[in-house]
Amino acid sequence: MKKLVLLVSLSFLGFGAANAADIPEGMGVLPTQVPVPADNPMSAEKVELGKQLYFEPALSKSGHFSCNSCHNLATWGVDNQPFSIGHKWQRGGRNAPTVLNSGFWSKQFWDGRAPLLEDQAKGPPLNPVEMASESEEAVVARLKDAGYAPLFARVFGKDGLTFDNMAKAIAAFERTLNTPNAPFDLFVQGKGDISKAAKRGMKKVADMGCTSCHSGPLFTSNEFVEFQYGKDTGLKSVTGKDEDDHVFRVQSWRNVAMTAPYFHDGSAKTLDEAVKTMAKVQLDTKLSNRDVSDIVAFLETLTGDAPQVTFPVLPRPTGKALNFKD
Amino acid sequence: MKKLVLLVSLSFLGFGAANAADIPEGMGVLPTQVPVPADNPMSAEKVELGKQLYFEPALSKSGHFSCNSCHNLATWGVDNQPFSIGHKWQRGGRNAPTVLNSGFWSKQFWDGRAPLLEDQAKGPPLNPVEMASESEEAVVARLKDAGYAPLFARVFGKDGLTFDNMAKAIAAFERTLNTPNAPFDLFVQGKGDISKAAKRGMKKVADMGCTSCHSGPLFTSNEFVEFQYGKDTGLKSVTGKDEDDHVFRVQSWRNVAMTAPYFHDGSAKTLDEAVKTMAKVQLDTKLSNRDVSDIVAFLETLTGDAPQVTFPVLPRPTGKALNFKD
Repeated sequence: MKKLVLLVSLSFLGFGAANAADIPEGMGVLPTQVPVPADNPMSAEKVELGKQLYFEPALSKSGHFSCNSCHNLATWGVDNQPFSIGHKWQRGGRNAPTVLNSGFWSKQFWDGRAPLLEDQAKGPPLNPVEMASESEEAVVARLKDAGYAPLFARVFGKDGLTFDNMAKAIAAFERTLNTPNAPFDLFVQGKGDISKAAKRGMKKVADMGCTSCHSGPLFTSNEFVEFQYGKDTGLKSVTGKDEDDHVFRVQSWRNVAMTAPYFHDGSAKTLDEAVKTMAKVQLDTKLSNRDVSDIVAFLETLTGDAPQVTFPVLPRPTGKALNFKD
Repeated sequence: MKKLVLLVSLSFLGFGAANAADIPEGMGVLPTQVPVPADNPMSAEKVELGKQLYFEPALSKSGHFSCNSCHNLATWGVDNQPFSIGHKWQRGGRNAPTVLNSGFWSKQFWDGRAPLLEDQAKGPPLNPVEMASESEEAVVARLKDAGYAPLFARVFGKDGLTFDNMAKAIAAFERTLNTPNAPFDLFVQGKGDISKAAKRGMKKVADMGCTSCHSGPLFTSNEFVEFQYGKDTGLKSVTGKDEDDHVFRVQSWRNVAMTAPYFHDGSAKTLDEAVKTMAKVQLDTKLSNRDVSDIVAFLETLTGDAPQVTFPVLPRPTGKALNFKD
């Protein structure tokens, strides 16, 4: 009965019928609710503090890098670099993944070594090729000099300015960085249409089996899968186990059209190239040019609304020098 | 008659009387209207494009630096570095001045070599120690790859994507980055009060003669003045003339409490230190600690409302690789 009503309203709106039968199994609309860990509940004040910290260069030893340097919200949560530029112009070893919708992932980093955003956020500040801060204490000291003590106290109580709470606030902000209303989602909901090419692409990725890994509303199973491509050994570099050789976390397709270059080594410059390589390496399939452009047209329908972020103003008390160093 | 009404309304509001006689000559409220050159009229579309360009890393050869890297709107238009970090971790030769209220200045750069923001905006993209772009054409080519052609066409007409128009759009955006409602301004307007220490500081800077250069509502004469401090020869490095030795543009005091470190070489880490040094070098005066804290209290009243900026989303068309290089 419900389906009937939907079809009626769709034809009334003039959209092509997004009959449920048209949508391959497992594909779905981006959820509106992001999972929140019990020990880090959301609040407006925490999100605001997290936003300040996300844009805070004092997390880095040099005072040059913030989270936003590599996960730039102006460019869909990435920096369009194969490997990000870090402390003293060093390059990281893996392509910076987007922060957008990352609250939905059950594993962070390409090798999944952090389960939660709270764990992930503690990595880059101390990574010597990224923000290169000397220690957790050095980060906390710089945040203190920058006037954050009262801001943390408001959210976490007295003596709340700690490295762990920094990560909690950043994670809370990141959980707001989601991208609803992608054309695909509107299509599924009967609120819009997608092109014929995109519909062919949608069918193709299901028929080929891409969606056995890129599954669910996030278009990732959040699982580890072997990808025999490039020199990076992926999960093996964490576990040391041969069975984890070239095993990586499946990346989400959400907003993938906006986050070039691709793969853990950023070696695929365009989405066309990434699609061709994935088909070849993972499915031993040589795609026709038309298949590639259909699939790309479908992937483009997964670009949602970028989050609207008001640029924060960071605390900078008079009389305190921030001790930035090379 | 007007003055009487003002005094009455002030006492009604409970504020200390901001009698016009209390305000030293030449000091004044930040103007609400920024001067706009006849050949670059403001429009909402131009300001929006300028904002995108201001945050656009594709202006730089490496794809790492935007205008906002050194003139960070999250930190009052500066980067809190003595000398900014540029291409391949080179350091610039002069402290990055704030972009806030810069539309009011009749000269840009420490040596005043650019009269207008339109001229200034063309400098950093091509400066080899800053954004290090290869040429104007290289910048335009990268903006084209990033999908800017239709955005420029909307503002500047067909074939509007040029290096000059890039600078015009950035300048238009920068003219919106002003900081009204500083406590000093509210005090002058009878809408608020400032501390007794700040009032003593206000009188002190006038009596000492600081305001003979730091004059007018911007607290800068916008003139060139000798400052025999450090190795940098200032205007002489542009003109080659001995009379220009160690001559620099007078900096504005607006928001100065938020923009440490200070001077053209960023050598003064705190505002206290900067105040002491200026008194010594320019006025041959050794200030008492109380005078210093009074003056700093006054300078803090010149911190206005930071502009509210919604973070832009930059164009990134599928299928185009941005050719970033070291």
